Amino acid sequence: SHRYRIAVIPGDGIGREVVPEGLRCLRAVAEIHGFELETVEFGFACAGYWVRHGEMLPPDWREVLGGFDAIFFGAVGWPEAVPDHVSLWGSLLKFRREFDQYVNLRPVRLLRGVRGPLRDHEPGDIDFLVVRENTEGEYSSIGGQIFEGTDRETVVQETVMTRTGVDRVLRYAFELAGSRPRKHLTWATKSNGISITMPYWDERAAAMAERYPDVVADKDHIDILAAKFVLRPQQYDVVVASNLFGDILSDLGPACAGTIGIAPSANINPDRTWPSLFEPVHGSAPDIAGRGIANPVGQIWSGAMMLDHLGEPAAAARIVAAIENVLDERPEVLTPDLGGSGTTAGLGTAIAAEI
Amino acid sequence: SHRYRIAVIPGDGIGREVVPEGLRCLRAVAEIHGFELETVEFGFACAGYWVRHGEMLPPDWREVLGGFDAIFFGAVGWPEAVPDHVSLWGSLLKFRREFDQYVNLRPVRLLRGVRGPLRDHEPGDIDFLVVRENTEGEYSSIGGQIFEGTDRETVVQETVMTRTGVDRVLRYAFELAGSRPRKHLTWATKSNGISITMPYWDERAAAMAERYPDVVADKDHIDILAAKFVLRPQQYDVVVASNLFGDILSDLGPACAGTIGIAPSANINPDRTWPSLFEPVHGSAPDIAGRGIANPVGQIWSGAMMLDHLGEPAAAARIVAAIENVLDERPEVLTPDLGGSGTTAGLGTAIAAEI
Ligand SMILES: CC(C)[C@H](C(=O)O)[C@@H](O)C(=O)O
Ligand SMILES: CC(C)[C@H](C(=O)O)[C@@H](O)C(=O)O
Repeated sequence: SHRYRIAVIPGDGIGREVVPEGLRCLRAVAEIHGFELETVEFGFACAGYWVRHGEMLPPDWREVLGGFDAIFFGAVGWPEAVPDHVSLWGSLLKFRREFDQYVNLRPVRLLRGVRGPLRDHEPGDIDFLVVRENTEGEYSSIGGQIFEGTDRETVVQETVMTRTGVDRVLRYAFELAGSRPRKHLTWATKSNGISITMPYWDERAAAMAERYPDVVADKDHIDILAAKFVLRPQQYDVVVASNLFGDILSDLGPACAGTIGIAPSANINPDRTWPSLFEPVHGSAPDIAGRGIANPVGQIWSGAMMLDHLGEPAAAARIVAAIENVLDERPEVLTPDLGGSGTTAGLGTAIAAEI
Repeated sequence: SHRYRIAVIPGDGIGREVVPEGLRCLRAVAEIHGFELETVEFGFACAGYWVRHGEMLPPDWREVLGGFDAIFFGAVGWPEAVPDHVSLWGSLLKFRREFDQYVNLRPVRLLRGVRGPLRDHEPGDIDFLVVRENTEGEYSSIGGQIFEGTDRETVVQETVMTRTGVDRVLRYAFELAGSRPRKHLTWATKSNGISITMPYWDERAAAMAERYPDVVADKDHIDILAAKFVLRPQQYDVVVASNLFGDILSDLGPACAGTIGIAPSANINPDRTWPSLFEPVHGSAPDIAGRGIANPVGQIWSGAMMLDHLGEPAAAARIVAAIENVLDERPEVLTPDLGGSGTTAGLGTAIAAEI
């Protein structure tokens, strides 16, 4: 039977509460589908490794993690002790860039049993994928400050897009759109205001569109696109966006579908030169951490995306079906963000049992 | 009696359809409140000046427009003929920057008579202001391309923030928040990912907050902020954001409150060294232009913001009240975006009559 080696990084805050539920469901499905998961846990977190070493990761982190089949990640961040940009650039964003996880795939789906904030929408009605560029763009670390502490103080940061970086994520998104029944792709832009990088993004997307004549491709400026997620979410199928725009859309989309607590994500290295990383869209949420009420569904669903990536699509589908059944049929176990009064462990256990 | 000199720039697309309705309402209210409006119309548009001159504006545009008390603007853009970044940087964005209209103020309000997309919200419930930095930040024109046409092709664009630019818009927003009953200010950030300019924005906002102890100030990352606009819009009062984030939030906010068609905006030069500019949030909307169905409310409401700025708050309030009454009581005149089957002129005339 297949055996997968998984690096587990629960991280900080609610990451530590939801990861065990994710693992619980992964183990349940592994048993049924007859594969093995070998998990090794790492304490790479602000409230872990950082407190002892003043760094988020050991110097040899590439060797330590690089050999795993995948990374199952909770959330990192403890802003009271470590500035977010330090903790995130010191771990999560480093993995994304240095393990070349250039696709961040985030499904948005209105599930049965979830009462979303939008009226006039039924489960099934909202069902799209955000494909986010995950290594470059607005998330660059180039720039700096001049005339510090004076009235002339000026801060500059560069957005960097490369043909390689832009084309490969566009290609992934067009392939994905081509594989779906609606074959519809929308690219997010802001070429009317961001006058250098965004016209370039448009140019590459238009060129890619010519190579996929069966995909219906159009573009929306990010401002109006955000508005349309609220007004007409049913019109989207695959939405491809730069790093920053993808970040915004992949929180906004799940909010329109009910709660960020259920949203999963896959940081994929499609070339498989390094492990891919699977994490919920929500962060470490210090405000609700420690209370046992965090929604574990985003973490559990991320586990399903991991299995899909590892080549176990049937097991992945079983997890997603179990999530949807429990949300729909077991209101008594739902967490507060879903309108219930259940706990993290209660919801996780119910999904594992349903599996 | 007071006399105000207004430069009118209808622009392109639906700008030409909604500006006359804005003027209709301005004239109606001027008569009642006993002031005069002297309007001079300019054909600065893609489908106007540009077609003849290959430029959006004449070289002496500063002298031509600089002496007016305000600019009443429709929308510019005709992407089939002129790339958007050319037309916008050649007019609207030039005005904002060179007339130093450093505050872009955009009210978001769920009005009586508007059926918004969010369930569980009543008119009055959503009522906040987006204060957008309007001259710098992500909308810089610095950057370029290298290795064009090769696999190494790389495009760079700089975000530029200055202490002057950041502090003045923050100060405006804190003053505004201090003048409102809830005295609540939220600043949009993304300092966990955009690691140079956004931590700077946070630092200046935190410093400004110390000078306004009566204002309750907090921050949200743009991704979660966008999500919360959908999930808990009632919690916002004044939201201050960088140029790009303000752009996104001020389309998303109005969408949550029903339609972008009603959203107004004021591009304000608070020092009054140059005229301020008033325009709806929607653009030229080539897809619906020429059909007489565009919603004129954003334009009419922008006229009210203009009167407020000119020192006619009672007249401004009368326009806003007339808008709300008509939306609430005259469903037969509503435009399609509001769920009706009325026309631009029909809705404009009804509001003018109500005034
Ligand atoms: C047309 C465009 C350049 C403009 C902007 O991004 O500022 C518009 O979206 C707005 O919000 O006024
Ligand atoms: C925590 C933060 C740096 C991160 C991002 O912006 O990428 C998060 O919001 C996400 O979407 O994964």
